[in-house]
Amino acid sequence: MALTPRIAIDAMGGDVGVRVMLAGAAMARHKHDGLRFILVGDEERIKAALDNHPNLRAASDIIHTDGVVSGEDKPSQALRKAKSTSMGLAIDAVKRGDAGGAVSAGNTGALMAMAKLALRTMPGIDRPALAALLPTLGDNDVVMLDLGANTECDATNLTQFAVMGAAYARTAMGLERPRVALLNIGTEELKGTDEIRDAAALLRGAEGLPMQFAGFIEGDKLSRGDVDVIVHDGFSGNIALKTIEGTARFVTDLLRRAFTSSTRSKIGFLISRPATELLRHHLDPNNHNGAVFLGLNGVVLKSHGSADAKGVANCVHLCAELIEKDITRQVTEDLANFRRGDAA
Amino acid sequence: MALTPRIAIDAMGGDVGVRVMLAGAAMARHKHDGLRFILVGDEERIKAALDNHPNLRAASDIIHTDGVVSGEDKPSQALRKAKSTSMGLAIDAVKRGDAGGAVSAGNTGALMAMAKLALRTMPGIDRPALAALLPTLGDNDVVMLDLGANTECDATNLTQFAVMGAAYARTAMGLERPRVALLNIGTEELKGTDEIRDAAALLRGAEGLPMQFAGFIEGDKLSRGDVDVIVHDGFSGNIALKTIEGTARFVTDLLRRAFTSSTRSKIGFLISRPATELLRHHLDPNNHNGAVFLGLNGVVLKSHGSADAKGVANCVHLCAELIEKDITRQVTEDLANFRRGDAA
Repeated sequence: MALTPRIAIDAMGGDVGVRVMLAGAAMARHKHDGLRFILVGDEERIKAALDNHPNLRAASDIIHTDGVVSGEDKPSQALRKAKSTSMGLAIDAVKRGDAGGAVSAGNTGALMAMAKLALRTMPGIDRPALAALLPTLGDNDVVMLDLGANTECDATNLTQFAVMGAAYARTAMGLERPRVALLNIGTEELKGTDEIRDAAALLRGAEGLPMQFAGFIEGDKLSRGDVDVIVHDGFSGNIALKTIEGTARFVTDLLRRAFTSSTRSKIGFLISRPATELLRHHLDPNNHNGAVFLGLNGVVLKSHGSADAKGVANCVHLCAELIEKDITRQVTEDLANFRRGDAA
Repeated sequence: MALTPRIAIDAMGGDVGVRVMLAGAAMARHKHDGLRFILVGDEERIKAALDNHPNLRAASDIIHTDGVVSGEDKPSQALRKAKSTSMGLAIDAVKRGDAGGAVSAGNTGALMAMAKLALRTMPGIDRPALAALLPTLGDNDVVMLDLGANTECDATNLTQFAVMGAAYARTAMGLERPRVALLNIGTEELKGTDEIRDAAALLRGAEGLPMQFAGFIEGDKLSRGDVDVIVHDGFSGNIALKTIEGTARFVTDLLRRAFTSSTRSKIGFLISRPATELLRHHLDPNNHNGAVFLGLNGVVLKSHGSADAKGVANCVHLCAELIEKDITRQVTEDLANFRRGDAA
């Protein structure tokens, strides 16, 4: 492709600080040497961190600011600092067209509020949805959305999330007609809340969409790989995603305890190290780092606050891919088609 | 104690049938030889199954009926068959005082509807809540409620669940002042829905309750053992519980794949077998089988539809314990104290 993506990095966000953000960007550039960057934050600290990454330095411009959005800032407080913070200026670079997308590890609520104000939502979209990829037992990951941006959702919100999630699965995973399901407490048509049942009726009735509506999915099937996109309100999504994280950690903690419970088990553990390393790799959240706000006129990704350099690199890589594949145009077109089908 | 619990068993419910239900009851009686039973269902099949369990036969009466509640029956359909089905007659034995409690592996919605109609809810309780025990990394299990009986809940429902869940933790786990938390999408006071925030305010303001209110808990902390009771509406609870089940299976499936990925790993697996068996035991849902309806004037337990004999035995055992410790009186008293405190 002709595009060489340029990505604005909020160098100050997250628990991890400048060095990890820049190490991640450098790592991403090693794999994809067309990448260019705008690094936003404290110039002195950025320059110091760049000393270790000449390859990144050569491909980067710096926008200096002292201001940061803290983890405690409410969205309304953050908005007042939009023009003076690393997060706000990274998004502004996308708005001005200087960057194709932005990556921040900062405060999620502030990031959404700023991105929404600066980039505006697509026609007909009230609030953007936050979508992430999760590992499955199947051939590809699964897209889950919304993950926290919208606590309560009506049927229209949920159907829009379905359309946007399918567009994301087509773009990021190359699927022609992603299988889309609504998270619910049973698979029968009568189960769940009015909002979910109404959304299912709308999706069942929609024609010509580049997706297959697969009905309802329950919490015990999320990681099975039977569907490609799982749609839920931000409350249920937060519960499901965090429960996945917590349970995976719970099981691996139990496994660690079991392996250290006897000398024999310790020996077995040493021998089967490659197997447990494979498991650890598969479950490492850094390998799936990077959640994207869908429904905005621009590409903004949230990197997990505690991601390491490899995690940041994955998020930057995903950002580059979504810019190259023009996710914004894809989502806009699919939403327009859906509205036309709905009106017809 | 003077009481020798007598338990009504719905011998026909669940995916598993008469033989597993009776094998489970027999197993429970081997551990607790004071137990007596009323076995409800097809007399011929019950008698045939009892041939393998003379110990159980000696302690059991049989109530014959041909009628069964199917997995597809809606609660309203099941209610019309209350007097003619094994589920309905098992509950009826509790109502008449012939049994101290009932165990069924049948249709959960039907079981709740029948139990509610026959036994009535406690004063001030609209609908009973379904509570289960889950394993944790801590010293004891955690009580989770509600698990599916009430899709949407207001703040009053949630506070009642908290009081009932604490009574359950005191009774079943012998804790003096259980730590109770509300499931939410963050720990700050402003997070979540109005219902959850209002319930938190009510619980923070309540005094003299035999529990400690621990605020909000997120999905990634459910299995940590930091709290003893986790309260949620039936929708969120269903999502969380099933996501725990699904993720535990996902991780163990990945582990199995990893262990069979090379000869070396297979050897390591054989050597560390005792460790993985320990893990399997810890995660086996049969070890935590048995969910109780709280808020009813009587003890009714739901055994998982696919539990094996060991699982049924655990459920029967829990039922006996709750009868012996008079859970119904405990919950009734705690609710009355809570209302008095609330009115004061």
